[in-house]
Order: sequence, then C-alpha cells, then structure tokens
Amino acid sequence: MKVVALAGGFGGARFARALAESDAELTVIGNVGDDEEILGLHISPDLDSILYALAGIGDEERGWGRADETWNALDTVGALGGDTWFQLGDRDLGLHLLRTQALRKGEPLSSITARFARALGVDATVLPATDDELRTHVETPAGDFPFQEWYVGRRHEDEVTGVRYEGDAKAAPGVVEALANADLIAISPSNPYLSIGPILAVHGIRKAIESRRVPSVAVSPLIGGRTVKGPADRMLERFAGGTSPTHVAAVYEGLIDRLVIDEADAGEGDHIVTRTLMSDEAARRTLAGAVLEAAAVPR
Amino acid sequence: MKVVALAGGFGGARFARALAESDAELTVIGNVGDDEEILGLHISPDLDSILYALAGIGDEERGWGRADETWNALDTVGALGGDTWFQLGDRDLGLHLLRTQALRKGEPLSSITARFARALGVDATVLPATDDELRTHVETPAGDFPFQEWYVGRRHEDEVTGVRYEGDAKAAPGVVEALANADLIAISPSNPYLSIGPILAVHGIRKAIESRRVPSVAVSPLIGGRTVKGPADRMLERFAGGTSPTHVAAVYEGLIDRLVIDEADAGEGDHIVTRTLMSDEAARRTLAGAVLEAAAVPR
Repeated sequence: MKVVALAGGFGGARFARALAESDAELTVIGNVGDDEEILGLHISPDLDSILYALAGIGDEERGWGRADETWNALDTVGALGGDTWFQLGDRDLGLHLLRTQALRKGEPLSSITARFARALGVDATVLPATDDELRTHVETPAGDFPFQEWYVGRRHEDEVTGVRYEGDAKAAPGVVEALANADLIAISPSNPYLSIGPILAVHGIRKAIESRRVPSVAVSPLIGGRTVKGPADRMLERFAGGTSPTHVAAVYEGLIDRLVIDEADAGEGDHIVTRTLMSDEAARRTLAGAVLEAAAVPR
Repeated sequence: MKVVALAGGFGGARFARALAESDAELTVIGNVGDDEEILGLHISPDLDSILYALAGIGDEERGWGRADETWNALDTVGALGGDTWFQLGDRDLGLHLLRTQALRKGEPLSSITARFARALGVDATVLPATDDELRTHVETPAGDFPFQEWYVGRRHEDEVTGVRYEGDAKAAPGVVEALANADLIAISPSNPYLSIGPILAVHGIRKAIESRRVPSVAVSPLIGGRTVKGPADRMLERFAGGTSPTHVAAVYEGLIDRLVIDEADAGEGDHIVTRTLMSDEAARRTLAGAVLEAAAVPR
C-alpha cells in the first residue's frame, strides 16, 4: 500500500518512523517552513528529524538531532563570541555543511535530500514540500518572528496570535505525483498551523489532497486535549475555538476523511480511536496499524 | 622589545609560541597562501595553528588543529558521500564557521583574526600577511596544484619543480607598521618557499624588511641538513643548490642579518648556533633566547 505522509515537527519524525516500520510503501512530504540559516548554514530541522528517525540515528529522548551527539563546534563558537542560541551538534553539522555547499552550487533541496536518504540507507522516499523558499512567521504580542527565532530563540513562550507562510513556493518534484498515486494520505500528529500548515501552503499540495480519490486521515496531535510538546493546544483553542477532536478535524476540513484520536479523547464523533503516543516500537506499531486501517474505511 | 615574527606552517606556530613565552612584545605575521575553501568554509590553516599555539589549545603532537579534538562532523560528511580529504575537527570547525560567516558579511580577515585572538586570551598581536586573496600554487611533474590539494590531498609526494603565489595582495592593516616599529624581525623555521615566500610576496612586506633599521634574523628550518617535517630540504636542494646554512641564508639575502642554526649544522659562517628543535618549553626558551640575542648583534 502506497502511503504518503505529511510530516513536520516532533510528531512528524516519529510518525514517519512508525509508518516506515509497517509494510507500507512510504513517501514522506516534509515541512520546510522552519528552515533557517544558522552560522551561514542552511538548516532544515524537520527534514533532518525525519531522515534521522528513518535511519535510526536520531536522538529519541531529545526528539531532534543525532543520537550520541557531541557539541564541540558550538563550544568553540561560544568561546569566540558567536551565536549559540541554535543548538547544532557536531554529527548534525556534517550534514548541514554538505547540504549548504550543494545548495550554493545550485542543487535543489529535493535532490540533496534524496541523496542523503540513500546514503543513510533510508528506504522511504523523503521529499521536501518545496524546493523554493517558504518561511513560517509567527505573530505574537511581542512582534513577528521567523519560526526558529520564536521557537528556539524565545523558547516559544510568546502567545501566537497569527501565523504567516512567506514565499511563493511550488511543490517539489514528486510531491503532487506521490499524492496522486497514493493509496492513503496520512497527516502526522503535528501542530496543524506550524508543522502541517506550511506544507499545505505550497501551491498544488492542498488541491492535490482535496481532489484525492483515496482515503485521507490525520492523527490528532492532542492527547486528552493537550499537546505532548509545543503550543498546539493553545493555538487550537485560539484559532479553532477548542481542543476537542471535532475542533481538530475541522482544521483539516476537506483534507481528511477520518481523524485518528487517542483513547483519552474518545467520545462523540466518528473517529478512529487508538493510543497515539509513540513512546516505543510497540506503540508506533499500534498507531501505524490504526492509520493503515483507515485505507479500508469507505469515503 | 618589540619582535615581529613571520610565521607559517608547522614551525611557525611553535616559533610564535616560543617568542610569546619570552618577555618580547610580539606581533606575528601569518602566512595565508595555504588558505583554502573546504566544504564551503574558509580555512586559514597557518593562522589557526598560530592562534591555537598561542592560546595553548593546539594539538602539540599532531602539530595542527585543536587538542582534545573530535571528528564527528567529518564522520557524517563521509557517511553522506562528501569529501573528507581535508581533516576538519569539530572544535576547529566552530572557528571556521564563524570566520566564514564574518568574511561573507565583509569583515576583513585581519579584523576577524584580532577578535578571535582576544576571545582566546592571546596577548600577542596576530596579523594575516594580507586581507586579500593570495594562493600558493605548487608546480610538480604531475601538474600544478593549489597548496592544500598537493600538501594534504596528494600527501606532498610530488616533487616540487616550482612555486607560484597567485593574487595581487596588499599588506593587511598593521603589517607594514609593525615591521617599521619593530626592534627585531624574526623569520620562523619554516619552508622558505611554501610558508615564508607567500608572506614576502605580499606588496610592501619584502620592501619593509629590506629597508629595516633594526636587526633581522631567520631560524633555519633544517637540522643536520634535513627538515623536521615537509619537503623544505628537497626544495632547498633544488632551488638553492644545497642545504647548508649558507644556502639557507642565501634564500633570505637582503632580508636577514643573521641565521640561527642548529648545533648539528654548526661549521663555517657567522651564524648563531643553538638547539632549534622546539620539543618542549625548555627547548622553546632556548631558541627564543638565541633569537632575541640577535637584537644586540650589530648590523
């Protein structure tokens, strides 16, 4: 079964891994709205988290970056008076160096990502939503910030009053085709505005999902009405009017046929209920199973 | 006593440290002919060796790079199929990242180097010979190569039949002034063609030394007619016709008043004889003492 997953943020990488561990033929479309230039290097945090999770080299506890990481380059940056607000590990840096160099030579991000996935032994297809520049900006009472400056630099403490996606981005090669050829479309349990929204803001992606002929399902990022990590619950409260499964499903109106929710949120509505916290391999298997079952649900 | 040292390569960094440990007021003019772009980063190997040696954070055994170094970024580069012929350690990388970013923003290399020296607690003044691009090219029977490609990439195995310095380089701010105000000029025990030659190729530097009113001294890079490291002996044989102190002194004709040589090379000629191998602090003190005595030698 061909499954195309939209993935971003903390939940996106774990969800991609859960699906990759199933027998689905997986394509992951990754968010690049969080991309940032740090110390002159192009950083794609969500793509990297996906690659690292699929290659089994990610730090599972931290939820981002490489396992068995060291921080010596950043130590030097700090000692020399440079910016260290964005945590770049040494193993992680090697990838950023190569990608930045390749981008400067004109290679598209999608091509670089495919090369890295192959080199890391990743079987799934990993595609950035776009090869063009697309940047998520967060509006807060303290002002507007590029995503990473708000999320990392200001520890996502400012209340989000609005989200903008800047850039006139076309879908990367393979993205619309993958959606058109999928047997199932699956949206990861991620922040709908910050992690999934930028993917849907890319020209052609929303339309490709809206015009699908196959089932589409989203996994709610909430458990018991609250997020595992990040501000999704506060943002759903503000932008969708609440944190019930109905509110979450409404955010994806026209884009999904079913919502997968955690047992803690079970109640009204025709949702797929399972345990959604991907705490270990068994939990990932349970969630992937529930998601893949959605392929059989009549539209 | 104001001492200005011309320094490059392996011997340059150690020599700078030896002088810094004396009570001289030290300015080091560092070779930048070896500079190279590696993985999109601007690398200044000689300047960095000087900074690391003066800050006491260099790897003494290897003779380049940082002590207590890790190589995780380069491991990733290799795993992803990138070039790993040039060894970049993680601690070292932090400096390259900051310098490259600052150069891209238009800050001159001399200003960046001064900032880094201050941040590392280095008391000596460290100046690149030039802020302009100057590149040493090595001519060999196998073709012409940029310095690092020949030295590191091809392990300096090809015989050197010629050396070219490419670039129209002006002396960096402070270089000519330092030479004009020196009480003593000292040339490090380095390869005259590969490490000192590029410094002398910078407009104004050779002339400033030739027109000096103070003593100038060079330390021979040879011990018993052979180099401690690198191809200086073979190159002196080819380009100067021999490896005796007389041959070495002839290479610096007009630029020095005395040559400091090792006991192993003592014999004919009016040279300063001492032990020149800087194997430990005592050895460095001995050599620095012999060099500083040259300030008292009548011209």
